Amino acid sequence: MTPPPVGIIMGSQSDWATMREAALLLDELAIPYDARIVSAHRTPDRLWEYGKTAVDRGLQVIIAGAGGAAHLPGMMASKTRVPVIGVPVQTRALSGVDSLYSILQMPRGFPVATMAIGAAGAANAALMAAGILALQDKGVAQRLDDWRAALSASIPEVPSDD
Amino acid sequence: MTPPPVGIIMGSQSDWATMREAALLLDELAIPYDARIVSAHRTPDRLWEYGKTAVDRGLQVIIAGAGGAAHLPGMMASKTRVPVIGVPVQTRALSGVDSLYSILQMPRGFPVATMAIGAAGAANAALMAAGILALQDKGVAQRLDDWRAALSASIPEVPSDD
Amino acid sequence: MTPPPVGIIMGSQSDWATMREAALLLDELAIPYDARIVSAHRTPDRLWEYGKTAVDRGLQVIIAGAGGAAHLPGMMASKTRVPVIGVPVQTRALSGVDSLYSILQMPRGFPVATMAIGAAGAANAALMAAGILALQDKGVAQRLDDWRAALSASIPEVPSDD
Amino acid sequence: MTPPPVGIIMGSQSDWATMREAALLLDELAIPYDARIVSAHRTPDRLWEYGKTAVDRGLQVIIAGAGGAAHLPGMMASKTRVPVIGVPVQTRALSGVDSLYSILQMPRGFPVATMAIGAAGAANAALMAAGILALQDKGVAQRLDDWRAALSASIPEVPSDD
Amino acid sequence: MTPPPVGIIMGSQSDWATMREAALLLDELAIPYDARIVSAHRTPDRLWEYGKTAVDRGLQVIIAGAGGAAHLPGMMASKTRVPVIGVPVQTRALSGVDSLYSILQMPRGFPVATMAIGAAGAANAALMAAGILALQDKGVAQRLDDWRAALSASIPEVPSDD
Amino acid sequence: MTPPPVGIIMGSQSDWATMREAALLLDELAIPYDARIVSAHRTPDRLWEYGKTAVDRGLQVIIAGAGGAAHLPGMMASKTRVPVIGVPVQTRALSGVDSLYSILQMPRGFPVATMAIGAAGAANAALMAAGILALQDKGVAQRLDDWRAALSASIPEVPSDD
Amino acid sequence: MTPPPVGIIMGSQSDWATMREAALLLDELAIPYDARIVSAHRTPDRLWEYGKTAVDRGLQVIIAGAGGAAHLPGMMASKTRVPVIGVPVQTRALSGVDSLYSILQMPRGFPVATMAIGAAGAANAALMAAGILALQDKGVAQRLDDWRAALSASIPEVPSDD
Amino acid sequence: MTPPPVGIIMGSQSDWATMREAALLLDELAIPYDARIVSAHRTPDRLWEYGKTAVDRGLQVIIAGAGGAAHLPGMMASKTRVPVIGVPVQTRALSGVDSLYSILQMPRGFPVATMAIGAAGAANAALMAAGILALQDKGVAQRLDDWRAALSASIPEVPSDD
Repeated sequence: MTPPPVGIIMGSQSDWATMREAALLLDELAIPYDARIVSAHRTPDRLWEYGKTAVDRGLQVIIAGAGGAAHLPGMMASKTRVPVIGVPVQTRALSGVDSLYSILQMPRGFPVATMAIGAAGAANAALMAAGILALQDKGVAQRLDDWRAALSASIPEVPSDD
Repeated sequence: MTPPPVGIIMGSQSDWATMREAALLLDELAIPYDARIVSAHRTPDRLWEYGKTAVDRGLQVIIAGAGGAAHLPGMMASKTRVPVIGVPVQTRALSGVDSLYSILQMPRGFPVATMAIGAAGAANAALMAAGILALQDKGVAQRLDDWRAALSASIPEVPSDD
Repeated sequence: MTPPPVGIIMGSQSDWATMREAALLLDELAIPYDARIVSAHRTPDRLWEYGKTAVDRGLQVIIAGAGGAAHLPGMMASKTRVPVIGVPVQTRALSGVDSLYSILQMPRGFPVATMAIGAAGAANAALMAAGILALQDKGVAQRLDDWRAALSASIPEVPSDD
Repeated sequence: MTPPPVGIIMGSQSDWATMREAALLLDELAIPYDARIVSAHRTPDRLWEYGKTAVDRGLQVIIAGAGGAAHLPGMMASKTRVPVIGVPVQTRALSGVDSLYSILQMPRGFPVATMAIGAAGAANAALMAAGILALQDKGVAQRLDDWRAALSASIPEVPSDD
Repeated sequence: MTPPPVGIIMGSQSDWATMREAALLLDELAIPYDARIVSAHRTPDRLWEYGKTAVDRGLQVIIAGAGGAAHLPGMMASKTRVPVIGVPVQTRALSGVDSLYSILQMPRGFPVATMAIGAAGAANAALMAAGILALQDKGVAQRLDDWRAALSASIPEVPSDD
Repeated sequence: MTPPPVGIIMGSQSDWATMREAALLLDELAIPYDARIVSAHRTPDRLWEYGKTAVDRGLQVIIAGAGGAAHLPGMMASKTRVPVIGVPVQTRALSGVDSLYSILQMPRGFPVATMAIGAAGAANAALMAAGILALQDKGVAQRLDDWRAALSASIPEVPSDD
Repeated sequence: MTPPPVGIIMGSQSDWATMREAALLLDELAIPYDARIVSAHRTPDRLWEYGKTAVDRGLQVIIAGAGGAAHLPGMMASKTRVPVIGVPVQTRALSGVDSLYSILQMPRGFPVATMAIGAAGAANAALMAAGILALQDKGVAQRLDDWRAALSASIPEVPSDD
Repeated sequence: MTPPPVGIIMGSQSDWATMREAALLLDELAIPYDARIVSAHRTPDRLWEYGKTAVDRGLQVIIAGAGGAAHLPGMMASKTRVPVIGVPVQTRALSGVDSLYSILQMPRGFPVATMAIGAAGAANAALMAAGILALQDKGVAQRLDDWRAALSASIPEVPSDD
């Protein structure tokens, strides 16, 4: 049995409201994934284990969402060479700019592919994952092309007042 | 003859000072690339052409750097499903926060994998590209693992006063 | 039949809530316009076509509203010399500062006349369009002068507690 | 004798370092202008006079640059319906974000066409002025088209290391 | 009959919700004032007249509230040497930071005594006015001292859960 | 012997580079002052003493400059009803925005008349002090009027290239 | 009778909504504390007295919460060498960034241990206090270790849709 | 032999320029420390080991400096209950605001005692460490009191022009 190629991880249960957008879009594209809570601070050993086994488990992409001092995506990137896509979750006082800077400003050596703040970013993380998988999976490539074409075709010419 | 798997593009000649960091790191990892100037505003047709032919030319990853109203990475992402990694180039008045927001805040449908502002981001773009290529190229995977191990091994235990 | 001198375009249906302010003010000034959805990322070819034919269709001013990585106004400015007025739509996490920087910080060569964030900016885009048309249309000039005089006359001397 | 169609005004002598970029570009496009210092705070009566006579003097566009609490562009827009293009001059402590907000955030009724912060914005103010004049002056239209074509043609394909 | 020593002015009716705090506090201190709407952009001549006659009318302090490109306090400071206290009104997209920068960052020559953003700032504008009047009016001085003492006396030692 | 009506205080010796602008301008206006270092954190008892005796010493205005967590102006305002004018000194990492917020955002009850960040703000603090003194001193009023008139008269009509 | 080792102070009653989180967490850890309102501006003498007697009263840690020009933590740090932990309370216009900068940016000599903005910061202040007390109190050390272990154990593996 | 009670750690050699200020101040106070480079991303296992053994090695305080996506202080706080003091190192594009947010905005459970950005923050980290040690070491308490008294005594009354 092949394990799912995409892992969605998040720092806490409350991030799921945002990260579910990634899961829903992977569902649309028929890309298997598994979703787990991995807290950089509360369950660091879980993070370690997840990262160290990522290559051997056949993970192709890791989508990591976190808010505030959002250390999860960057710490995961330091533990594995599997591409990590980071989603800054919006926060109360600082609107997710704190999450963004913590995820984005990684030092030379450990990139995190940072997405827009919030739900749009989570959905785009799934599409970026699909784009990566599409490089070696023609089925995903076709479904991604179709999804993009459908999105473009759905835009009306004229705005509606309703 | 196989075309290079990585394309580095940038909005202007002045971005090369930053984007060269990506090229140098790809050289270190023995990953072929070609580098071109593609301005979203001054050469939009070049952008169109580049994007529309990306899949057929066998491009695996596009690294796009731009500053200010940095439209290049996002417009490229709208023209091809090849993964686009965006590098916000530092600017004079707004320190690259303008570049960052223009690259990062893409709407649902068109992700750009955004890196840190400036030279560290450019180097990390190359490493992210390598991580993506490593999924299907064992040679790249090995060289990336080695590069990461060498980086870790190079860190001294104690700070030096010199 | 003369085509309308003003084109209102926006990146998505959701921008219409803001951009309608421009339409309403053009209505007040009896200036014809047409309004369309043109997404820089989802319908780039529509953008291309719109821009390339703008001069020949007799467009005098383009009002373009967008939010987030708001590429529409700037990309339109790269495709036509018809003056482009940009309206940054307010966003959730970054309050429209992302929209603002993406629209405002255009490189040398391709100006976008940027308005205030949100609905006031959309209304002002219509007034700026009127100011431009007034240079060659005495009717518009008179109606704009009247509108401004009426606005000034409407300001009470003393604030009201109701 | 026809008066120049473009007026460049600025809040102080020190703004000329930035605003000269507008003058130089108008020179390139063979568009006449005159340049004056008009301080909203130090010479408010000069501002009043300039604004009240703008239409009668045949001014077509006013380019106004200012820094800090940059009231000049907005106050001019309140005194005349001639289109006002605002250029936020970069400042020391706040990098021109103060100038930008003061110019941009005009209330409903009095638009200022805001350009990017600093020298690129000043150059673009000239191009925006040209785009407005081109609506009724085929010579300007032709020269602007040529200028844009030359800019695009000047972009090399490949970045240079020198 | 002595005219009131304090003038409260504001850019629009909507600012009264904030500026009423200044009026209420002047009432508490038994300091006469009059409140007027003076829009820098919509009624610039009213501003001119107000400023030019301020000294002769015996005004001692002007409290000016405005939001967005808040030009009123600074323009008033350019028209009269009567001390101007500025209150940045909170705004929707930029939370009043736009108002703040426009009021605060006055060039050398024309100070505006800037208060905190919003209602607390409006109340403090009244107290600052009282502090200025107290320099030459022992009654105001006594009432201000009493007000401050009462404020300090009102602070409980221990927080209450209700 | 009358004590000087204006006190200039600052948090540290390094603030004098900025605050000297206030002293120079008071010199121009022939207004006596004394300048002292009063650190809110390092010499809090000095601050207490200064504040408690301010009224009795006949101080009319206190100009207080500080940088970073700039507590001096606000703490002084809590100790005396003499009007306090605050000058945010520019800082290294945060450009004086930290100084600004600490000085500006005083709670209801204790206003600080905040000036622009840096040297222009220090000069304006002196002019604000003059405007306050001018309410009861015709000599100062005349000298301030003259100073303002001279400033306005000094502005050339046309920018100079030198 | 031993006095409580931790003092919670806050600038006003309204801060208690935030600071109660610190109290609740100290309760969980069975660490005694007392909570008081000490306003830097409204009750400066109370602050002075509190600070000067802190060492002699046996206080081990002071937790100080404040919002806006939040001078309380820093002024307390200048009056006593007992460690001061600062909690920036979220504010309306500036989201607590004003509170943060006023608390954080203390000059060399007087540190304040700054926590995250808002309720999470208040809870963490209690945990930081516990960590300090644990250095000399094995009971606190054990309870803190247990609390941390329980927190980690409470994190589910998989996000829940409910 | 007693191990040093204070550990200074930093993310890279380049942080030593800032963190040396902490070391120098600990030297002044005769408090032993050791300084090491521990990179959260490049040497995560070193971080793990350091954190897990901190209590048993008798560490009393950890001072951790880092820049950018500064994960070191927060990750250390997740591995040990020994108090962690964080120093945000100033960065090029974002001036250390990125470092600040990554260090400060820790979630409930894992506080980091955050200091001011840059060198002043590093010095204050040493003073905060001294304040913590002083709770159980009368010698440190005395030396800290003396240091503070000397600092206060060193402030001149009057600013010097030299």
